[in-house]
Amino acid sequence: MSSRDNQDAPRKEHLEQARLRIAPYVHRTPVFTSSYFDHRLGAKVFFKCENFQKVGAFKIRGATNAVFSLEEAEIERGVVAHSSGNHAQALALAARTRGAHAIIVMPRTAPAVKLAAVRDYGAEIRLCEPTLAAREAETAKVMEETGAVLVHPSDDSRIIAGQASAASELFEEEPNLDLLLGPVGGGGLLSGIALAAHFQSSSTQVIAGEPAGADDAYRSLQAGELIPSVQPKSIADGLLSSLSPLTFSILKQHVAEVVPVSEEGIVEAMKTVWERMKILIEPSAAVPVAALLGGKLTVSGKRVGVILSGGNVDLENLPWSQS
Amino acid sequence: MSSRDNQDAPRKEHLEQARLRIAPYVHRTPVFTSSYFDHRLGAKVFFKCENFQKVGAFKIRGATNAVFSLEEAEIERGVVAHSSGNHAQALALAARTRGAHAIIVMPRTAPAVKLAAVRDYGAEIRLCEPTLAAREAETAKVMEETGAVLVHPSDDSRIIAGQASAASELFEEEPNLDLLLGPVGGGGLLSGIALAAHFQSSSTQVIAGEPAGADDAYRSLQAGELIPSVQPKSIADGLLSSLSPLTFSILKQHVAEVVPVSEEGIVEAMKTVWERMKILIEPSAAVPVAALLGGKLTVSGKRVGVILSGGNVDLENLPWSQS
Repeated sequence: MSSRDNQDAPRKEHLEQARLRIAPYVHRTPVFTSSYFDHRLGAKVFFKCENFQKVGAFKIRGATNAVFSLEEAEIERGVVAHSSGNHAQALALAARTRGAHAIIVMPRTAPAVKLAAVRDYGAEIRLCEPTLAAREAETAKVMEETGAVLVHPSDDSRIIAGQASAASELFEEEPNLDLLLGPVGGGGLLSGIALAAHFQSSSTQVIAGEPAGADDAYRSLQAGELIPSVQPKSIADGLLSSLSPLTFSILKQHVAEVVPVSEEGIVEAMKTVWERMKILIEPSAAVPVAALLGGKLTVSGKRVGVILSGGNVDLENLPWSQS
Repeated sequence: MSSRDNQDAPRKEHLEQARLRIAPYVHRTPVFTSSYFDHRLGAKVFFKCENFQKVGAFKIRGATNAVFSLEEAEIERGVVAHSSGNHAQALALAARTRGAHAIIVMPRTAPAVKLAAVRDYGAEIRLCEPTLAAREAETAKVMEETGAVLVHPSDDSRIIAGQASAASELFEEEPNLDLLLGPVGGGGLLSGIALAAHFQSSSTQVIAGEPAGADDAYRSLQAGELIPSVQPKSIADGLLSSLSPLTFSILKQHVAEVVPVSEEGIVEAMKTVWERMKILIEPSAAVPVAALLGGKLTVSGKRVGVILSGGNVDLENLPWSQS
């Protein structure tokens, strides 16, 4: 797949190629179970632990697939993205692994620790004003100046094909899942796991958790048309992006339901996973868990997969210490 | 082994019997690696994750072995211990699993959440004043009234044989470890892993981390005689007990070194494990990690095992949020 046709939904062979392509560079993360969750829900729940993934989140899967899909002539010009989240570190690491130059456009208000992490992976940082317009303008400028290839965090079929591998691995270890839950922001991960289910486990219903304060996927699927979020707000800061035409079209076809969850539900789910499973997950990863615990889904007696998308949190600033 | 001879060091066959006896009732916990720790130390480190064990700590291993070692006549009289920590929950669960009655003597100042956890496992709680004398007096009273069998958290060869299984599993998965680190409080776990190394992996040096504020094992091994702690104090509240003659004699023979660590070192090690490995460990579990990071041990180029002993923490009250 060249970089020109990355606006078509990836096909089955693209998912399979992505999985082989990235396997040497990403972790095969473990699948955890929890007798607490099983008892509470009357279900059998399988947690795919992408919090243990490189850079602490699934994002390295898509970024690695995108970077390693590029042709030599493209890779010599470098890659660029604007992100202050996990995609920034993921793209920086993926580029370094391939020996390519990465430029990450970040808001000048980004926490020092995030800037340092991206720099540690060898990327160049361009600071800009903390608005979407400024970030996009700066990114366009970088592309024009350097010819760098844009690697968008979700609106890109190579990214989607890479993220799909998290679900593929889970299906391989735990076949016959009745449900598979993941979070939705820009929809890259959710598109990936929905396509993985479609190709590999078609009896599995894919369901998303989404913050009620950033519920464009919920409203878009209800309305049947793309309705981007206006001033989205949630503690799940990895899920503030809106769907793109590409991810919306995939979700419309392959996602059974989007469940909006409250901020309280997210914090409660996050804390419950920490306390009961002894693992760190970030607020965005707690969103599908909140959907599971919220009581709106019928899960009793079912085999349920959950993608725990990441584990990057600021330990000095935990949500339950702030009230 | 009957309950009368539990003051002899367990032999090889006792460790093997314990492992078979408890296998149906405890988790075989995973072994984690961390490229962060490997890079930082120039070593290959294998973390045995007892924080994922039932009741959130290795304690269920020893308690299960003790309870399932008892004869029918003994088990009918029930079991008793005084503990406000992980041993309390472990003994309560082990007794419930065998269908036995457990009485746990706990200080009336114990946090409500700990009392509730023990009660949830079906044990009877006897409250007493928060002094060691009061706890021992109340325990003696329970034994006299009910004939219940005392299951001490560390000074008991059945407990030691049970705890040893954590190290046995690790040796099985990762042979040829140069070093194996664990924490030391009363010395039940450390005695167990030291004996497991002796019988199963005799080229492995066993090293303990110990809080400098509760360093009776360090001082006792230096002096060659048992010197109990007076008013021990540490955030690692699972390690405040002193060695017994039994555990001291085992450590003297089979432990290469005890490394005292500071409170700051413990908190830093705990936070580093959380941030880098995305898993929750309790302060006591961070103590051998602090020994590893403290720079006093030569670990470069070595294969190092670490027993992460438990993951029970109060998320509302984390050490790095208190300054």
